[in-house]
Amino acid sequence: MNLWGGRFKDKINRSFLDFSASIEFDYKLAEHDVNCTKAWTISLAAAGIISELELEEITNGLYAVAEEIKTNSFEFMPGDEDIHTAVERRLVEIVGPAGGKIRTGRSRNDQVATDLRLFTMEQLNDIDYGLRALIEALLDKAENLMGVIIPGHTHLQHAQPVLLSHLLMAFVHMIMRDRKRVKNAYIHTDCMPLGSGALAGTGIEIDRMQLAGQLGFERVSENSIDAVSDRDFVGDTLYTLSMIMVHLSRLAEQVILWCSQEFAMVRLADAWATGSSLMPQKKNPDAAELVRGKTGRVVGSLMSILTVMKGLPLSYNRDLQEDKEGLFDAIETVLGCLHVIERTVDTMEFDRERAAQLVAGGFITATDLADYLVGKGIEFPQAHRIAGEIVVYCLDKGKELKDLALREFKPFSELFEEDVGQWLDVEASLCRRNMIGGTDPVEVSKSIKAARDALERKSESL
Amino acid sequence: MNLWGGRFKDKINRSFLDFSASIEFDYKLAEHDVNCTKAWTISLAAAGIISELELEEITNGLYAVAEEIKTNSFEFMPGDEDIHTAVERRLVEIVGPAGGKIRTGRSRNDQVATDLRLFTMEQLNDIDYGLRALIEALLDKAENLMGVIIPGHTHLQHAQPVLLSHLLMAFVHMIMRDRKRVKNAYIHTDCMPLGSGALAGTGIEIDRMQLAGQLGFERVSENSIDAVSDRDFVGDTLYTLSMIMVHLSRLAEQVILWCSQEFAMVRLADAWATGSSLMPQKKNPDAAELVRGKTGRVVGSLMSILTVMKGLPLSYNRDLQEDKEGLFDAIETVLGCLHVIERTVDTMEFDRERAAQLVAGGFITATDLADYLVGKGIEFPQAHRIAGEIVVYCLDKGKELKDLALREFKPFSELFEEDVGQWLDVEASLCRRNMIGGTDPVEVSKSIKAARDALERKSESL
Amino acid sequence: MNLWGGRFKDKINRSFLDFSASIEFDYKLAEHDVNCTKAWTISLAAAGIISELELEEITNGLYAVAEEIKTNSFEFMPGDEDIHTAVERRLVEIVGPAGGKIRTGRSRNDQVATDLRLFTMEQLNDIDYGLRALIEALLDKAENLMGVIIPGHTHLQHAQPVLLSHLLMAFVHMIMRDRKRVKNAYIHTDCMPLGSGALAGTGIEIDRMQLAGQLGFERVSENSIDAVSDRDFVGDTLYTLSMIMVHLSRLAEQVILWCSQEFAMVRLADAWATGSSLMPQKKNPDAAELVRGKTGRVVGSLMSILTVMKGLPLSYNRDLQEDKEGLFDAIETVLGCLHVIERTVDTMEFDRERAAQLVAGGFITATDLADYLVGKGIEFPQAHRIAGEIVVYCLDKGKELKDLALREFKPFSELFEEDVGQWLDVEASLCRRNMIGGTDPVEVSKSIKAARDALERKSESL
Amino acid sequence: MNLWGGRFKDKINRSFLDFSASIEFDYKLAEHDVNCTKAWTISLAAAGIISELELEEITNGLYAVAEEIKTNSFEFMPGDEDIHTAVERRLVEIVGPAGGKIRTGRSRNDQVATDLRLFTMEQLNDIDYGLRALIEALLDKAENLMGVIIPGHTHLQHAQPVLLSHLLMAFVHMIMRDRKRVKNAYIHTDCMPLGSGALAGTGIEIDRMQLAGQLGFERVSENSIDAVSDRDFVGDTLYTLSMIMVHLSRLAEQVILWCSQEFAMVRLADAWATGSSLMPQKKNPDAAELVRGKTGRVVGSLMSILTVMKGLPLSYNRDLQEDKEGLFDAIETVLGCLHVIERTVDTMEFDRERAAQLVAGGFITATDLADYLVGKGIEFPQAHRIAGEIVVYCLDKGKELKDLALREFKPFSELFEEDVGQWLDVEASLCRRNMIGGTDPVEVSKSIKAARDALERKSESL
Repeated sequence: MNLWGGRFKDKINRSFLDFSASIEFDYKLAEHDVNCTKAWTISLAAAGIISELELEEITNGLYAVAEEIKTNSFEFMPGDEDIHTAVERRLVEIVGPAGGKIRTGRSRNDQVATDLRLFTMEQLNDIDYGLRALIEALLDKAENLMGVIIPGHTHLQHAQPVLLSHLLMAFVHMIMRDRKRVKNAYIHTDCMPLGSGALAGTGIEIDRMQLAGQLGFERVSENSIDAVSDRDFVGDTLYTLSMIMVHLSRLAEQVILWCSQEFAMVRLADAWATGSSLMPQKKNPDAAELVRGKTGRVVGSLMSILTVMKGLPLSYNRDLQEDKEGLFDAIETVLGCLHVIERTVDTMEFDRERAAQLVAGGFITATDLADYLVGKGIEFPQAHRIAGEIVVYCLDKGKELKDLALREFKPFSELFEEDVGQWLDVEASLCRRNMIGGTDPVEVSKSIKAARDALERKSESL
Repeated sequence: MNLWGGRFKDKINRSFLDFSASIEFDYKLAEHDVNCTKAWTISLAAAGIISELELEEITNGLYAVAEEIKTNSFEFMPGDEDIHTAVERRLVEIVGPAGGKIRTGRSRNDQVATDLRLFTMEQLNDIDYGLRALIEALLDKAENLMGVIIPGHTHLQHAQPVLLSHLLMAFVHMIMRDRKRVKNAYIHTDCMPLGSGALAGTGIEIDRMQLAGQLGFERVSENSIDAVSDRDFVGDTLYTLSMIMVHLSRLAEQVILWCSQEFAMVRLADAWATGSSLMPQKKNPDAAELVRGKTGRVVGSLMSILTVMKGLPLSYNRDLQEDKEGLFDAIETVLGCLHVIERTVDTMEFDRERAAQLVAGGFITATDLADYLVGKGIEFPQAHRIAGEIVVYCLDKGKELKDLALREFKPFSELFEEDVGQWLDVEASLCRRNMIGGTDPVEVSKSIKAARDALERKSESL
Repeated sequence: MNLWGGRFKDKINRSFLDFSASIEFDYKLAEHDVNCTKAWTISLAAAGIISELELEEITNGLYAVAEEIKTNSFEFMPGDEDIHTAVERRLVEIVGPAGGKIRTGRSRNDQVATDLRLFTMEQLNDIDYGLRALIEALLDKAENLMGVIIPGHTHLQHAQPVLLSHLLMAFVHMIMRDRKRVKNAYIHTDCMPLGSGALAGTGIEIDRMQLAGQLGFERVSENSIDAVSDRDFVGDTLYTLSMIMVHLSRLAEQVILWCSQEFAMVRLADAWATGSSLMPQKKNPDAAELVRGKTGRVVGSLMSILTVMKGLPLSYNRDLQEDKEGLFDAIETVLGCLHVIERTVDTMEFDRERAAQLVAGGFITATDLADYLVGKGIEFPQAHRIAGEIVVYCLDKGKELKDLALREFKPFSELFEEDVGQWLDVEASLCRRNMIGGTDPVEVSKSIKAARDALERKSESL
Repeated sequence: MNLWGGRFKDKINRSFLDFSASIEFDYKLAEHDVNCTKAWTISLAAAGIISELELEEITNGLYAVAEEIKTNSFEFMPGDEDIHTAVERRLVEIVGPAGGKIRTGRSRNDQVATDLRLFTMEQLNDIDYGLRALIEALLDKAENLMGVIIPGHTHLQHAQPVLLSHLLMAFVHMIMRDRKRVKNAYIHTDCMPLGSGALAGTGIEIDRMQLAGQLGFERVSENSIDAVSDRDFVGDTLYTLSMIMVHLSRLAEQVILWCSQEFAMVRLADAWATGSSLMPQKKNPDAAELVRGKTGRVVGSLMSILTVMKGLPLSYNRDLQEDKEGLFDAIETVLGCLHVIERTVDTMEFDRERAAQLVAGGFITATDLADYLVGKGIEFPQAHRIAGEIVVYCLDKGKELKDLALREFKPFSELFEEDVGQWLDVEASLCRRNMIGGTDPVEVSKSIKAARDALERKSESL
């Protein structure tokens, strides 16, 4: 069935039809398309376009279609070029020609935009659920590992001692920001284009606010030309998903590093690792690698929609059909990645002994040494230089800072006294960093608590 | 001057220093860096690290530095690898070694993140100002051209008649959405990292909330490891700028089409067009073309920051130095584009006669013809088919719909009556689309008014 | 069936297996995987790892598998995580445990890289075939429309008269360049990784050159660590495909403009256009719009693979599994787009009268007017200025250049004489541009002939 | 000075002129622009447009301009909107109005395309020089470190022992491929557009082949419409540069990992590392991090040019001005990155003891254990399983494979004999991988020699 054709003398070419058809992917909108049509039919009745009887017949027909979709018994036919065509075709089969009336006053332009927004809103809720689950897994881990000290890295070099829980909380904070982006994307999506017709507005007298209420939209679009060609919400969603993937890729990188024989900080659960077809000893962090790799495809989809929209004149152009596949793929990818990374985090085991071993070396409290001197009244730049010279001394002697005797400190500055030893203790170092956001155990515990509270407050749907 | 070195035996290679230096671009942060340091110095005094006297000296020194920056008399020296080094170097020249104390408890990691956020917040305000000016120009145009009817396009084909003002308002709605994105980007940026030190938190006892207040931040970062490596706000800003450019590119495309001899809808002001070095008759819409072209570079910068951040382990890595140039360039590009497109819109003249000529042909009210039959009780699909057949009839006869006599309509359906003529009138067609967002003149006027009201309500800074 | 597991105590998690499995898309490599294994088995026999009898059994088994794949009767089982696993599983079902020997000395790392290269080489041949077909359609059109003059545009403004065939040939030249890129991508792909093992090289004594010959490769990889992690050829192919799409998007844009009521230069065949579900008169250039839109997804896939590869340490990482879907999708997309655009070009009709009408106006020979004055001895800048002033004069009077009498030219320069009229003739203008690449009909004909000759010379497979 | 204006009544707006001017970046083309004009002037003389005397005067004038450019004494004036305008303006100042004749028959459209191609060809030569230098540094290192065995990684897990030189050669092979891409990009660029005029071809009778010869081009463009709007060569160059950066980012990642305290494989030279402003002990691999980060901007520029070109109708559009800045920046970035990474590689020191320590553990010869069993007649899948079980045994007992006594092997398979010990030796493992591309020392040495030979053969300019 074609939804058009009176003006055409020749039939559409078969291969062109296949090329331009969207049914292969927009079938995912089926449920939303039926709901959308149900609500529209009510509006048509209210406007007097169809009778109460027709409303009942069509509504019953649509329930039947919905049931078929739900139970996977809906059969697509050759010629169903898109989901709207398929639903109308099936409806007419069920209720007869009156089914065709559902198209009155609507265009596929406003219809597909409405369906896609409903779909996106639903999926953003699922994404948010996945983000919450990951936060929860990270919080659990941060609580369980409270007290474990590791070398914090900058430039992948040992920098200063930090709590492992503090580092895990860094990821929690990234994901919490992502939740805000998801919320914003949702708000931008939550606006009903239906009633915009092809571009000029529908010719039917309908109450768009009421229609929106029925479909679960907060707002209605305020310019019909814009409404049919606006895919900003796809961009917003894909950007949000890209940022989530960037964050997951960073977490994945961390896990991959930790699993290496060189870092040796983490043992993955057997159920969340894979082996090698060739090398019998291998246990690979494939989940994390796949997550890191999949960042590329989501970013690619964002680039894709921006490229599609660039330079398009008003209003609807068929280029916009390219809004769907990248979005569908990105959503599915992110949902999958959230799940596997959450399971990976939840099931991995940290090696506390290795952490202790790593934090013991590498002059990790050299900054504290400089701070010590500042406390004694030296300007920081000079204190920094002295501490650096002591590191060179240690490197030459093959010693660690904590191995030095007071008499070895003295030549570098007369200000060193016996208390320097305590000052270089890693736990003391941590505790001195007790401002908001610092690695002091009390602060980190507060931060975990605050994040958990926020999670509970915001765990309702978007 | 180096801010480090005690630990190094050999000097840094000169060409490497040039390669890694950021002063060539981060000098743009100078003002914010000085402000940041002023506030930090107060915190140092409050924490007892420096005396009241030192505070006064350093503050005076910083005022002197600020004055030099403002008056472009600040001289950069070889060895000033970044703006922080340059400011500290100059301060020490002015106030002596005590100037070095400003670095106590800070790292360039938290400092640069703070500077860049302050800069971005300031620039987002400017972007918003530019968006408001463009909305205003579009609103003025929409008001002035109220009543002009043009063919609305879908697929770049004549679709239905719409008000030119309605179409201009489509762009207003895009830009209004962009203002929301700018606001969201601002909120994400408005969070102070200062006090996070290199990654573990500062070792100094400072009140971060007070410090934030002094610098104009609403919030402080809650995890120091995250704070020094978080560049989400750069991504948020670049995405927002990319969407603005996508919208401007669409407006630009429209202008370019209108200026063509084929559309002939618009005459550009001489002051906002350019000529050809070869072809004497040319008057080119270069402003619009450049705006359309510059979309590429802003999208490229978004791609760039996402690529930079992908897979980075915690915490700060030098890769993050790549956060600035793309951002600076994108901001400058968008500000420039907003200005020229605003001027272009403001100064261009529409050819009302050409509009009338274009809207007269092309079966632009064929949808109304179908709607007419629906009004007579035919199902839309059938009505659509009949209207299509009448179009074919017209094409064969070389006629327009409005030229047809009733007896020519009759063979297609007995339901046609005399009133079909009025129904095909473009103004009547417009008026029937009088729902929210429709092209009915009353609705469009309301929409202009509402947009102007919103503009006035939200014209304060972000 | 798992190809690994001895080292694992727990079974892999089901949802993780689904997430990490590639069988859903790498089944496309089935045929190549079987061929690859056939050739490998011969090498194993040559190395004495398997007996002649085993070789025969396994080879027969592989033929059976190949037949099942060809006839779509190959059944995938749950647990077939990738195509290599599936083929080995089925082979073992057919020939018993000896089938497992095919894995000796191989890793999925070198195997998948080999399969993917074979697949890509095959597909690049198909792409080249599609490019040739499009060139042919353009050449046919250029020949048929020889002599039709249109306004050439710069800045979408009428610039100078050109032959329509000349403009069509511009696209031919783009596509000819793409053929060179396809050839280069092919050459980069044509290099066999097999024998590289997991990363260190196979432990089996095989003759890699002979193996390559059997599989149709020209060269073998020269570093096993590089070989298993090199996906440059995917980048090369995706870049090539992106450039093809950029070119097709430009051709599509041209078609879309030509089809508009404003340009009115082209009528699409009914079979290669679509209608509207709402507006009965619509005939939309959807094919061209979809092609233009699909540029985004191919560019997105290029960005994706670059993002995936960025910063990966050696050697194989699971991220590389993300090399396939984008590549497969891009190839399929480009093949489809080449077909529909070729058919669109072939079946569209140009309106010669409209061309004549458009070329008659717009001061399109103003450059010739300046050239005329240069011929009389004036410096070009002054000649350009005079011609510009005459254009202004015409605009004010509502005249075209060719309408001016000699006495109207005279006030602008005494050098004007009667011959100025001929000089402004569009055909004369064309003929004066008779250098290589110019729009002179003789030159354009030569260029068509040369392109057709090149096509015939290079029509063999890559 | 404007190169146009007769047709305009109002002057161009000042801010618009600034916005559209390209002189801020296209001044880099100055030298090429002058050369281009010199050659063009000779053609004009040959065509009789200018006299021999004028030729001499103009040529002398151009030499003077060239000298000013070379000595940085060329002064740009307000109103020099681009380099072509600036050069013509200065020439006219020097030689008088006759200087204006250089513009005869040319357009900035063909001129800028010619300049940019000349520039790109020159820069690609420099890039190739940088690639050669990096290959040389890697080859030197591979030779010096010959014999050092390290754990080869897949999935960042210890996989099999490999020669460090073998791994360094993996990067050599990547860069060798890049040299081919550079060569191909050069060939695509090496085609002269000059003589194409604005789009239709020049009206002057010139010999384009001779002109090309003078400018150092191999070929001339064969379609003038295509020639002025073709920026494929910018895309080709940016893609090539992106792939180079992807490879450098992988090398950088390797260096960063090696420098970490956990890997501890590499010590950077003090001259090629940086310190921290806060942490006195830090020695950071900033060079490698910056290189990795700068990948983003080059990929961003590729994205940018593809976005710019997408959907542009023929022929020249001002959007194309956006071809330069991204290209210039990418070239400069890659040249800088090649230099610093080459110096980093050349000056870094490997810790041979740490290599030995790492390769001793981690079951790195488990694959050899399986191969051993295959040699005894077991099918590989079973051998793989047995080896995996032995690994589990070792993990449970806290042993390495080489620590196991024969009686501990026996329970897993009766086929184990005394020779299993030798088989597990890492050097023996290496030597067994002696096919082309394998990690066997003899093969690796051959490969180093072959690469050095190729380097010498291909060290001439492109």
